[in-house]
Amino acid sequence: MSDTIEKVSIIVSKGSLEGVYPALIMANGARAEGIEANLFFTFFGLDAIHKRRFEHIKVASVGNPGLHLATLAGGLPGMSSVLTHYMERKMEKLDIPPVPEFLQMISDTGAGLYACKASVDLFGLTKDDLVDQVKDIITVGEFYELAAGGQIIFT
Amino acid sequence: MSDTIEKVSIIVSKGSLEGVYPALIMANGARAEGIEANLFFTFFGLDAIHKRRFEHIKVASVGNPGLHLATLAGGLPGMSSVLTHYMERKMEKLDIPPVPEFLQMISDTGAGLYACKASVDLFGLTKDDLVDQVKDIITVGEFYELAAGGQIIFT
Amino acid sequence: MSDTIEKVSIIVSKGSLEGVYPALIMANGARAEGIEANLFFTFFGLDAIHKRRFEHIKVASVGNPGLHLATLAGGLPGMSSVLTHYMERKMEKLDIPPVPEFLQMISDTGAGLYACKASVDLFGLTKDDLVDQVKDIITVGEFYELAAGGQIIFT
Repeated sequence: MSDTIEKVSIIVSKGSLEGVYPALIMANGARAEGIEANLFFTFFGLDAIHKRRFEHIKVASVGNPGLHLATLAGGLPGMSSVLTHYMERKMEKLDIPPVPEFLQMISDTGAGLYACKASVDLFGLTKDDLVDQVKDIITVGEFYELAAGGQIIFT
Repeated sequence: MSDTIEKVSIIVSKGSLEGVYPALIMANGARAEGIEANLFFTFFGLDAIHKRRFEHIKVASVGNPGLHLATLAGGLPGMSSVLTHYMERKMEKLDIPPVPEFLQMISDTGAGLYACKASVDLFGLTKDDLVDQVKDIITVGEFYELAAGGQIIFT
Repeated sequence: MSDTIEKVSIIVSKGSLEGVYPALIMANGARAEGIEANLFFTFFGLDAIHKRRFEHIKVASVGNPGLHLATLAGGLPGMSSVLTHYMERKMEKLDIPPVPEFLQMISDTGAGLYACKASVDLFGLTKDDLVDQVKDIITVGEFYELAAGGQIIFT
């Protein structure tokens, strides 16, 4: 194996803000180092590249003890939005943009954005439902071809 | 590193339907491309190869904002079953079988199914509790030996 | 690619007990085989190396159908603590120590513990908030340099 990482292929499988951001940050960090980066959006991760949804990615307010929030409180209507707003403001201070702008920024660095064909079919979507930065809808097999010679990171 | 992926070793650590399926789809997709594939079931992922449980893998109806479901509604008794039924019907239309049949199909392609020894001990199980397609119960160290020369994908 | 795995770089992104343990077990298992191991704590995974929090890592009692617990019951105050206590006792029987001791043990084997700079900034922390075993706070770019020549495992 070579002494440097030449390529990362990052699978985005979750649709929550804290599920999507690590993938975007790792892709962006890779490009900043001159590492080739591809993002493959699958299952609920598709929301991050879905035109009607990618501006509304939310923090999961239950099922995450890391938030130190009583589950019943986390289940209150609006709690997820409050947490999302809080995290977005924190992100902004770190110069980490909201999901739509972040996708554009990453795409501009030359990273490839791809949607998983099985997931697109599962949710009954077409290319038109996805943001313009998406290069292609590809199969798992095509993903493996794309990822060869690099690291696969499933998030 | 070679120009093609020769082997994938996929760790299944979650026990929800949306946690198990990506792993199975990636293993199946690998075999379809002639890539060697191993599945290593650990922690709650063990449910997917547990004889009394693998027919009852459910969608997590809370803690996933991607479902666009109010948390309090997601917590209603039966909501997880309704979502599971809905997703299984969608999967069926895509020719993706339920978990038990999918495991058999993947095993038939020559992929190796393994259970994590520490997790089997943690939940007080034995080989008899696991589906017949499981080749062996192995340690983390043995998993690393098995995975050498390929990609490790943790799901 | 060589016939053995020489290095694993494990990203810990979740703050629940069942999110943190697989990462620690995989790092410990790697060291036992003489494999170089690094842990990179990011997002809610930072809790595992946070002085005031790492003794209080809890099981997520909702959002995990693998627990076979009705969501409304999982949301009851105290349920997460009950489950956490139960799992810790089970772990103890397997000679798997609680998180603080486990971190010390893994650090003693020569594994490297690192905190993600962006996440440390996001949560407004400093090096003093983190346990002594943490070697350094590093960027995503520095993580990639560290991980070169090995496997990246995102948990």
